[in-house]
Amino acid sequence: MEKETTIYDIAKLLNLSPATVSRALNDHPAINSNTKRIITATATEMGYRSNTFASNLRRQRTNTIGVIVPRLNSNFMSTVLAGMEKVANKSSYNLIISQSLESVKKEVANAKTMFNSRVDGLLVSVAYDTEKTDHFDAFTKKGVPLLFFDRVLDHKQGTSIVIDNVKAGYEATAHLIGQGCRRIMHVTGSLKRNVYIDRLEGYRLALLEAGLPYEEELIRMTDLSEEAGIEAASHIQSMAGRPDGLFIANDFCAVSCMSALKRAGLSIPSDIAVVGFNNDPVSTVIEPNLTTIDYPGEKMGEVAAQSLINHLNGTMNIQTTNRIVLHSELIVRESSLKSAIF
Amino acid sequence: MEKETTIYDIAKLLNLSPATVSRALNDHPAINSNTKRIITATATEMGYRSNTFASNLRRQRTNTIGVIVPRLNSNFMSTVLAGMEKVANKSSYNLIISQSLESVKKEVANAKTMFNSRVDGLLVSVAYDTEKTDHFDAFTKKGVPLLFFDRVLDHKQGTSIVIDNVKAGYEATAHLIGQGCRRIMHVTGSLKRNVYIDRLEGYRLALLEAGLPYEEELIRMTDLSEEAGIEAASHIQSMAGRPDGLFIANDFCAVSCMSALKRAGLSIPSDIAVVGFNNDPVSTVIEPNLTTIDYPGEKMGEVAAQSLINHLNGTMNIQTTNRIVLHSELIVRESSLKSAIF
Repeated sequence: MEKETTIYDIAKLLNLSPATVSRALNDHPAINSNTKRIITATATEMGYRSNTFASNLRRQRTNTIGVIVPRLNSNFMSTVLAGMEKVANKSSYNLIISQSLESVKKEVANAKTMFNSRVDGLLVSVAYDTEKTDHFDAFTKKGVPLLFFDRVLDHKQGTSIVIDNVKAGYEATAHLIGQGCRRIMHVTGSLKRNVYIDRLEGYRLALLEAGLPYEEELIRMTDLSEEAGIEAASHIQSMAGRPDGLFIANDFCAVSCMSALKRAGLSIPSDIAVVGFNNDPVSTVIEPNLTTIDYPGEKMGEVAAQSLINHLNGTMNIQTTNRIVLHSELIVRESSLKSAIF
Repeated sequence: MEKETTIYDIAKLLNLSPATVSRALNDHPAINSNTKRIITATATEMGYRSNTFASNLRRQRTNTIGVIVPRLNSNFMSTVLAGMEKVANKSSYNLIISQSLESVKKEVANAKTMFNSRVDGLLVSVAYDTEKTDHFDAFTKKGVPLLFFDRVLDHKQGTSIVIDNVKAGYEATAHLIGQGCRRIMHVTGSLKRNVYIDRLEGYRLALLEAGLPYEEELIRMTDLSEEAGIEAASHIQSMAGRPDGLFIANDFCAVSCMSALKRAGLSIPSDIAVVGFNNDPVSTVIEPNLTTIDYPGEKMGEVAAQSLINHLNGTMNIQTTNRIVLHSELIVRESSLKSAIF
């Protein structure tokens, strides 16, 4: 077996003190960024495995990865977890999962539980109302790697795995405009979360490009539940200028809204064209089938777990990566096709 | 505060040795069952709190409950977990969840992870192929209470929370017979599991009662996936004596089967009447809406978590209860209504 590269080897080669090398690799503020760059590059070249890895070797591994998610009630989340399990199993890791139920208070408790369970790494998609990352500091201090997926927060120490929600929101809206819609309502979730604010931004960009006005009354912030879909439908019926297009940031909410609109006698897509989000299996059960954004949940889970495990194994350092963006895709079905030919 | 009843108080009252009392309360084989009965009854009368509780007081509590489930990809399981979270949160417990992915091998690994996470109690719904309870012995030996829900195993030391699957299977089938069906196919899961073998038994009883033959070729054992629904539909089309009724032990599988049958030009319910299981939200999205068994997932989660927490708090002893059966209900919708009036 080849001898492991140490900070002493790097220090010797660069003619620096081991302390400086260690600090640089730990992103210590006392080391200037140029020196950091040189030291990091040299370390990578010499095949140095990060401190985190070394400290993982020292401390007892549990081969357990913690996952904190907002809720476990969506097909999207279950496919993400399926992707994580697939990768974790291959490397003999076990997942333990907890739900924040969209509450930062519970997310804090979950983080504590995960920490006490001595997880080797943590994968997080944050709650509706999470604003700070303090509750994850204990992990980063202990060198336990932390990675956000889907609903992410800015965080110096880790990678985020996301899709381009701006682009997806743009494509959903531009498609409706292409079908002749001129008054498009957008039903979304908490604008504290990247996924929803970004989709809204995409919606805004598509309107702007088409020269259509952006109207506050066409934006509905909800919890994207089944009930929210029904409420949106009854609100739509009460509006003076009824929308002719509807972009809803979640398929299950879109489906319940469509069902309610159909019950009220509206025809989809001719009265109102609908686009959802996630490509949930329910989107092909509703009639007409729902146009949606295919969200690569399983892929996202795989990439998140693999990145974390690679970091734990020292074959990748997630602290050098800021963001991994996955591909998403508009899937056009009957619910939005106003054009005659299909 | 009232003084806690001890085994010494019970021993004194019954003129027995404390060791005999302790053994009896721990279900030791050396104590005869009559003595056990007397000691247990006296202990309950005197408000004695179980050994488990006492040992829980001695060891450090983590306020964490472990949950092991087959998969997290169903609405049923997410409502069960929602019920558990509701109760757990009220008592300041946190859940950590893991999936066996229907494999006993992974279930064994999950149990180990949960044990090492020092959970205060464990709630389990077993995998397709689990046959023994050995992997949970470490918990019972340490006095960590164990409770099975939905998919349960015979187990001396704990309670099981279930619905009456025989009755539910009987009602689903009897309803189809009442609608004039004479050749009813049953699509089910692994017959190692109580839920599926019991539903099949209910199906058999309903046929027997109606004087209809039980035919092996009308029973399909599958993994109840979406694909299994599509395969069942294509199998039905290839059959010489096509069934006129269909009882599928899972709504999502039933919905995919219905969609495939519809695509093949069959009319539901007139050509073939369909009943599912679980009352998943998708059952009211498919057209015609699906007749199903309402399965009280949230209630099941609440009862499971509450029983465990009561045991931990010493207000109930799950070792004295063998089984808690919850109420389920047939919900009749258009997919099975052959009769003219609706």
